[in-house]
Order: sequence, then C-alpha cells, then structure tokens
Amino acid sequence: MKKTIGIIGGMGPLATADLFRKIVVHTQASCDQDHIHILIDNNTAIPDRTAALLHSGADPLPQMEKSAHWLESGGADCLIMPCNTAHCYHAALQKLTNIPLLNMLELTCQHLVERGICCAGLLATNGTVETGIYNKTAEKYGITLLTPAGEDQDAVMELIYQGVKAGKATFDTTAVKKAADSLLNRGAGTIILGCTELPLAVEMYRLEFPATDPTLELAKGAIRFAGGSIQ
Amino acid sequence: MKKTIGIIGGMGPLATADLFRKIVVHTQASCDQDHIHILIDNNTAIPDRTAALLHSGADPLPQMEKSAHWLESGGADCLIMPCNTAHCYHAALQKLTNIPLLNMLELTCQHLVERGICCAGLLATNGTVETGIYNKTAEKYGITLLTPAGEDQDAVMELIYQGVKAGKATFDTTAVKKAADSLLNRGAGTIILGCTELPLAVEMYRLEFPATDPTLELAKGAIRFAGGSIQ
Repeated sequence: MKKTIGIIGGMGPLATADLFRKIVVHTQASCDQDHIHILIDNNTAIPDRTAALLHSGADPLPQMEKSAHWLESGGADCLIMPCNTAHCYHAALQKLTNIPLLNMLELTCQHLVERGICCAGLLATNGTVETGIYNKTAEKYGITLLTPAGEDQDAVMELIYQGVKAGKATFDTTAVKKAADSLLNRGAGTIILGCTELPLAVEMYRLEFPATDPTLELAKGAIRFAGGSIQ
Repeated sequence: MKKTIGIIGGMGPLATADLFRKIVVHTQASCDQDHIHILIDNNTAIPDRTAALLHSGADPLPQMEKSAHWLESGGADCLIMPCNTAHCYHAALQKLTNIPLLNMLELTCQHLVERGICCAGLLATNGTVETGIYNKTAEKYGITLLTPAGEDQDAVMELIYQGVKAGKATFDTTAVKKAADSLLNRGAGTIILGCTELPLAVEMYRLEFPATDPTLELAKGAIRFAGGSIQ
C-alpha cells in the first residue's frame, strides 16, 4: 500500500499542475489503481512569498498552515510545496504540522552531489536569492552557488512575474539567456531552475541551457517517499 | 471572490492533471492570487468504472462519495470529475452530495450545439459506449451520435488501457485512426474524445482529426461556475 502525498499548491497554480503531472508521469504504473494517492490544495489565497520576505507583504504562513491541516485531514502522509521561495517558511511550517514536509532544496542539492556537480548557477526570485536559502542548503553539500547580479536578476524576475505568472504565451527571453550564459561562463556546471515557474518558462519559451529542475527532483522524492517506483 | 472547485480525480491520474492544467491555463489571471481555488483528490482507490459497469467489478461509488465529502469539507462550491465513464454514476453521486456536480457530457453537447454540429462520432470506453450515457445526453440536444463497431471499438480500448493508462510513450495508432476515419466518413462533423485519456493520446501520439475535447469543455464550465473569465 503506497503512502499519500499532500501538495500545498497555488504557489503558483501552473507550477502546482506541473508538479502533479511530473509525479504521475514518473510513477511506474500500469493502471489507474497503481498510481499514488495525491491530495492537492491549489490555495490561491496564499500571499506572494517574495513580497512578504522583502517588502513587508502579508504573511503566507497562516494560509500554508491551513492547507497543511486540511491535507492531513484527508490522510496525507507527507507534504510537499512546489515553490522554492516558500521554503523560507519550511522550518516554521514543519513545526506546525504532524507529518514530514519534504524539502525541495535539499532534494535538488542531493541530486547535484549524485551528478558530481560542485558549482551551480541559480535562477530564482529576489526572495529566494536575497534570503540566501539556497546558499545555506548548497553549503551543507559543499556546492558553490553563483547568482546573477543587477540587471540579470531583474530579467529573471521579469520572466517569472510578467511571463509565466501573467500567463503570457510569448516573452522576449534575450535578457534571461544572457543571465544564464553569464553564470555558465563563471563556471556553473548547471543552472538550477530555482523558481517553479522556470521549468515552465523553459518549456513555454523554448529556453536551452544545461539545467536542473527542482520540481522534478521534488516529484521523484515524493514518489520514493510514497513507496512508488520511478520510471 | 471566486468560488472553489473540487476535483474528484484519479480517473485517471494523468487526465486529472490535464483537467487541472486546462483550468489554470484558461483562467484569465495576471498573478497567483487571481487564479481559482482548486481542491483535488487524486483518489486512485476508485475502482475501474468500465469493469464495474460491464464485468461486475467493484462499485466505484463509495470511493467517489468519500472524495466528494472530503472536497466539500475543504470548501468546494462545486464538484467535477474528469472521467466520462464515471458520469454513469453522476445522478447517484449528486444525490449523495450537497453541492452541484457539473456534468461533462452536458457541457460537451452544449458546446456542439453552439458550434452547429448535429452529428458527432464518439471514441470512448466500452463502459461509456455500451451504457449509452452519451447517446442519452446527445438526444436531449438533437445530436446524432455515431460509435465505432467491432474491432474499431477494440482499438479504442487498446489505446486507452494499453497506451495512456499504461504510461506508454509510443503506441501504434493505425487502428484508432481507421476507427476515427470511419466515423468521419459516416457523416460525423467532429470526433468527441469521450474518454479523458483520449485528449492525452492525441497529444502523446500526435493523432490528427477534427476533435472535441470534453476535458476542455469541463474546464471552461468550471471556470465559468467559479466566476472566472476564460482566456
């Protein structure tokens, strides 16, 4: 009997759908009933995480806790959240829940270690970059993390908020490609798509560079936790 | 304030992810918080619907009811289920719940009427075809429904169960194309992809014929119910 996965979603909604799809696609199953029981709260009432962390925006923790408890009430054995920036609240949220809250950043860094990558570039929101949460996790694993400077970081924020979150089918990615190239030239062995909108942007706007997808690593981690096999 | 949508999922899991993504993609929104609150139970304990309807398999209704009640407990204002065959239980399930259960078959037929289509072909499971649920709905709207005969129907079942539900990346679609062509030659103005695995099959195996996607019509119906605008 496989365990049940609870997804605290809505951060953002398309990233939540992407995580759900990645769990289903990568679970080895030959019929509906072989798949993993997944509960999702696409909670769009959770306030913006970067706005809360850097600009005194509304605290997202109460809504995240509300989702966590409801998912627990449905039988979730673990929780995951498809938002890198939200992991700034990981420790606080874990204290408020009775079941494990898997950590996307840890899973991503573990994956980099397995691939022998000791220097990675990070594309992420200002909230993720400025709080340094990825750096703290990377340090634990001996990984050097490079982040874009100045206007390169602005380009990443534009892509996330004015591109994917705004539902734009087309977007000028010249500036973001320059940001990624700059990180690769500085020695990054891969680019961490450290905002869950970025794997979507790569697909939607056909970006091409060596990348690591934390959403995929979280999906695989959740499948393993649930007792499923990865395909 | 938009209403909350509850999805009774797991029938199948990939179709559930597809419905979720279609709601998000077609909701007009400029940030996470503009989107619709969606609750999902990807309940893989729901037994196979065709097996129950035609081969005395386990009754899926109790698990569907369980999901419905849990989604209600989370604040769902309506329920939807991305499985055409499961609509054989629509009336019974509606009686067991306190909130509206939108009807994918009704929404699909309403869409055909709007497009002026009075004759359509149906590709669906044996459960959907043999119980005649689509025909009953189509009749109400004055739509003639054509279904594949003999080995053409077997080809559709193969595609659904041995292709999509089994997670196959490639599949020989020659027989299914023949089944669709036969319906079009008999006068169908469109092919209803009357199993939620079929829009996925069309994408995965690059099938090309004039088609109507009930999952998309259900997504749009749910967005309208929730008070969102469609993009």
